[in-house]
Amino acid sequence: MAKSSLNPPEAGVVSTEESPYCQLRPIPIRAVTMLPGFWKSRMDANREHGIPNLYRLLEEQGVLDNLRRISGRKKVERRGAFWTDSDLAKWMEAAAFALQSEPDPKLRKMLDEAIDDLTAIQREDGYINSFFTGESRKLSGRFRNLPMEHELYCAGHLFQAAVAHYRATGAAGASIPDRRDDSKFLDAATRYADFLAATFGPGKIEQADGHPEIEMALIELYRTTQKREYLDLAGFFLEVQEFAEKQYIEGHAVRALYLACGAADYFAETGDEKTMKALERLWADMTQKKMYITGGVGSRYEGEAFGWPYELPNERAYAETCAAIAGIYWNWRMLAIQAESRFADVMERTLYNGFLSGVSLDGWHYFYMNPLACYGDYQRQEWFGCTCCPTNVVRMLASMPGYFYSTSHEGVWVHLYDNSRLSWHLHDGMKLTLDQITDYPWDGQVEITVIPEATAEFALFLRIPSWCESASVSVNHGPPSGVSPGDYLKLERTWQPGDIVHLDLPMPVVLTEADSRVKEDLGMVAIQRGPVVYCLESKDNPDVPIRDAELMIDEDFTAEFKPHLLGGVTVIEGQGVYACPDQDRGALYRPLDGIRLEVRETDLHAIPYYSWANRGPSNMTVWIPKR
Amino acid sequence: MAKSSLNPPEAGVVSTEESPYCQLRPIPIRAVTMLPGFWKSRMDANREHGIPNLYRLLEEQGVLDNLRRISGRKKVERRGAFWTDSDLAKWMEAAAFALQSEPDPKLRKMLDEAIDDLTAIQREDGYINSFFTGESRKLSGRFRNLPMEHELYCAGHLFQAAVAHYRATGAAGASIPDRRDDSKFLDAATRYADFLAATFGPGKIEQADGHPEIEMALIELYRTTQKREYLDLAGFFLEVQEFAEKQYIEGHAVRALYLACGAADYFAETGDEKTMKALERLWADMTQKKMYITGGVGSRYEGEAFGWPYELPNERAYAETCAAIAGIYWNWRMLAIQAESRFADVMERTLYNGFLSGVSLDGWHYFYMNPLACYGDYQRQEWFGCTCCPTNVVRMLASMPGYFYSTSHEGVWVHLYDNSRLSWHLHDGMKLTLDQITDYPWDGQVEITVIPEATAEFALFLRIPSWCESASVSVNHGPPSGVSPGDYLKLERTWQPGDIVHLDLPMPVVLTEADSRVKEDLGMVAIQRGPVVYCLESKDNPDVPIRDAELMIDEDFTAEFKPHLLGGVTVIEGQGVYACPDQDRGALYRPLDGIRLEVRETDLHAIPYYSWANRGPSNMTVWIPKR
Repeated sequence: MAKSSLNPPEAGVVSTEESPYCQLRPIPIRAVTMLPGFWKSRMDANREHGIPNLYRLLEEQGVLDNLRRISGRKKVERRGAFWTDSDLAKWMEAAAFALQSEPDPKLRKMLDEAIDDLTAIQREDGYINSFFTGESRKLSGRFRNLPMEHELYCAGHLFQAAVAHYRATGAAGASIPDRRDDSKFLDAATRYADFLAATFGPGKIEQADGHPEIEMALIELYRTTQKREYLDLAGFFLEVQEFAEKQYIEGHAVRALYLACGAADYFAETGDEKTMKALERLWADMTQKKMYITGGVGSRYEGEAFGWPYELPNERAYAETCAAIAGIYWNWRMLAIQAESRFADVMERTLYNGFLSGVSLDGWHYFYMNPLACYGDYQRQEWFGCTCCPTNVVRMLASMPGYFYSTSHEGVWVHLYDNSRLSWHLHDGMKLTLDQITDYPWDGQVEITVIPEATAEFALFLRIPSWCESASVSVNHGPPSGVSPGDYLKLERTWQPGDIVHLDLPMPVVLTEADSRVKEDLGMVAIQRGPVVYCLESKDNPDVPIRDAELMIDEDFTAEFKPHLLGGVTVIEGQGVYACPDQDRGALYRPLDGIRLEVRETDLHAIPYYSWANRGPSNMTVWIPKR
Repeated sequence: MAKSSLNPPEAGVVSTEESPYCQLRPIPIRAVTMLPGFWKSRMDANREHGIPNLYRLLEEQGVLDNLRRISGRKKVERRGAFWTDSDLAKWMEAAAFALQSEPDPKLRKMLDEAIDDLTAIQREDGYINSFFTGESRKLSGRFRNLPMEHELYCAGHLFQAAVAHYRATGAAGASIPDRRDDSKFLDAATRYADFLAATFGPGKIEQADGHPEIEMALIELYRTTQKREYLDLAGFFLEVQEFAEKQYIEGHAVRALYLACGAADYFAETGDEKTMKALERLWADMTQKKMYITGGVGSRYEGEAFGWPYELPNERAYAETCAAIAGIYWNWRMLAIQAESRFADVMERTLYNGFLSGVSLDGWHYFYMNPLACYGDYQRQEWFGCTCCPTNVVRMLASMPGYFYSTSHEGVWVHLYDNSRLSWHLHDGMKLTLDQITDYPWDGQVEITVIPEATAEFALFLRIPSWCESASVSVNHGPPSGVSPGDYLKLERTWQPGDIVHLDLPMPVVLTEADSRVKEDLGMVAIQRGPVVYCLESKDNPDVPIRDAELMIDEDFTAEFKPHLLGGVTVIEGQGVYACPDQDRGALYRPLDGIRLEVRETDLHAIPYYSWANRGPSNMTVWIPKR
């Protein structure tokens, strides 16, 4: 397949638009306008608070000064971990994504300054890293401790940021009037990547970084520059790490998933079958045995790692926010390759739950761990000693528009539901607008107006979420027809501008159980409604000791949208009991039924899991013993 | 209370015989002869395999060479961690305990050589530590990194070993004919302790070791030498660590429990009420919220630590063998102070379960972690990189006779049941023999023949375990009378030589549940019989996927002693079902009752938890879902 020039077509968050082994083409962020609704309020908070506040913190915590120290612009001591460059790079990528949505001169200025500080430390040979530069003892140590020192991981984030910046400001950057610097960052990244390609590989340094990330970054850089050696180097790193031989998803969750992203990107370009087989094995292992109901992954504090099969502790869940994001990245790539709804289902589960819990409603504070139960005082923070998650959250949120739609040679695909306008074109160049109106995720009615620039035959693919047992669809108010969950509904017809599709995704309250091999969830249920996983938080149940609450599963549940609660959420009310406090509960272990606890009946009020811990210290649980 | 001379009365494992705030006096190890039965077979394996094999390994792994390197006896590189001296000291204490039971010239020779190697590195100032001696750079670093480098922890183990050796060979050591070196080791320890007393304290180094242990060792040394400054130094360390202010048992389990041991010893000598209040708080916190049914403690891999309240994962239990031992030590001290059965109950629970699982039936191999479920390949090892547990196991087993009986001014106390003969005396000097005959823990019939040297009035206190709901007792075949569980039964009478007490502790199969706040055990039961906690191991249930087994709790259970299985164990058989393999089990999370698993009925065979993993790789679970 012929590659286009260095000015690529306008690219998606992951620019697989020309990847030969992808069925779906991405759509640029700027082609999707989020309209007031669920995600726009999060994106606004992200733009107004999250991104600028993190820039302030990067400045305050010395991350930018670490660069200025090397370039001689400032005389300061180095601060922070050896991977501070990566935190800045993730912020830069977030800023670039945000600029792809709409102009923001203030943000542009911050980003330009950061680029200037970062590129100012680039060495003659192309190398950029503030930790290993500046003192000869350190430079001599570069590439010497790859397993531990995140050197190529930092490089990878730098490449991704450069690509995102190029898309915001280069040929793709219709929203940015000032293009003087449009390729400065990308050029620096390319020079660094050239240096890496000359340094690593068969017969050169034959080792990979202990923290994968460079793989997907190199492939994205390959897609942007058409330099085949970057793809080959990514392939080399995958081979060194024996990716295709892996049987299980294991070890450090973020690393394992970033590596899987790189492998998926590699398949997208090469069609390497062994890689795809490994990807399928690992995906099944994760989703069938090692994923929380929230889409969170990584059960263990020690090593921030995947656990054994079915090891999914709740209060002690690690479920790092970065791992949730990495899972979304991986599923997005798998979706592009296979166009199968199962990947979008996991993506949606993670987006509304295990990812979104990572950030406060106002966009100021972040979780690193995302437990599924809490009986202590666990609060979001604006910064961490190891502060990977906040910058990852802001880049995820800034790129959200890029995950809603795709195209294929058959037509257009809708993956996610929220108020938005797609202004793009089909593969044959036919301009197409889709207007989506909905109260999703609180209501499953979705109205999509299809506006091709002229009457045209193509297919509209609508994702029918696997959680929805009784979806139906109608076109232009015709009779609704039922559709099956867990697949894309293909509506193929000759579309007139203004045709209206009504999709109905009924959202009853669903009590969910886990596979009985997950012993931590035995005898308990979780409440779900639509894509949203619920929890009991003590704030809404002030008289109930949350740890002692039991849910009466045969009673009725009601769902009511409360516009002024937690930014607007649907609250679910059910009936339950709780063990009366202060009674004698006997020994920790005792003969079965030796103690019958006195219980009190109560209403139980459940809120979306993602919205917990926004009102001060509280107790919380997702899984509730059933009664 | 007047202290006796440097030749103390024959002392117990913990020599609280003159401690003013103890109600019970210990009995020397050598006063109790274990007769063929449950513990004797373990002690024999320990003496024949465990102790000599560990000496071989201490030699092979360089632990002794680390000393010879300092004394110039051998030119070698140092090997192992900075605390290797403590591993040797624990082995020395084990050897000294074993020698207190019976002479063993070969073992005596090993111990003498070790003492010779160890004392040869003592410096002029009294200091003994192979890691900080020998290179000036290191000596200058001594006491510089107390939080991390286990320096006083090593000293503590050395003191304890010296005291045990003194008891084996000094005035107390009736079993050892050759007494030439009887106080050499104790003298060295005393010189070292004098140096510490001159170095640490108010106005001197005002810091404690990061790994408690020295506290109880100093107090034991105080009891042995009557040097008050050792008790004061222990008190100082407790104060520095703010023991009396502690609200919860938390952090590294072994450290927390060793500290509690030191604090209990401190109370035993001083009666400090704030210390006792803290001890009671911590004991309640541990036994009501943080202890496994096996008596194991320390829920977390990270930090080898106690978890949050009710955080008790099963497959992922840490439950370090050393922590089980430390728990026994602590409860033994609390029992001596308060003479309350609750402490002996926890001791017994731990001895038969969470401690004993730490060693293989043949005495060769050890667990570091003691999980309550296993679906991987987890095997005991003879040595570890951090090899604290094996040497701790052998000293615990070698000292077992010392935990069976005590005396008080009222008479004699029986804490544990097994075939044994006590040959000792009452407080008034009256010689007393108790002969105990039983098949405990497989059968609850215990016959105790009481043989005072002459007719005498005193009380025989028999522990009625808290697990025993229907105990009864009779004297000289009189009518049995029922007694209450969880207390000591006081039989006060004029005893004739040859009076026989029959204690009946019926042992039905008991299904046990955990407090519902332990979410990891929800919906599950554990099988107990007498003091023994059972498990399902795949070896006895070859067709059953252990993770998928459910126990039919309303069916009958049978218990049968199998003399040739696992060294002789009572096996419990019940009825259950298991999910048929290879059926479609749906998604990891799914609507409640959306999938009804096909199950197959089966017998289920349970073995004592301590005996698992003695027949090669297997799956195992203590907690079984109830059906």
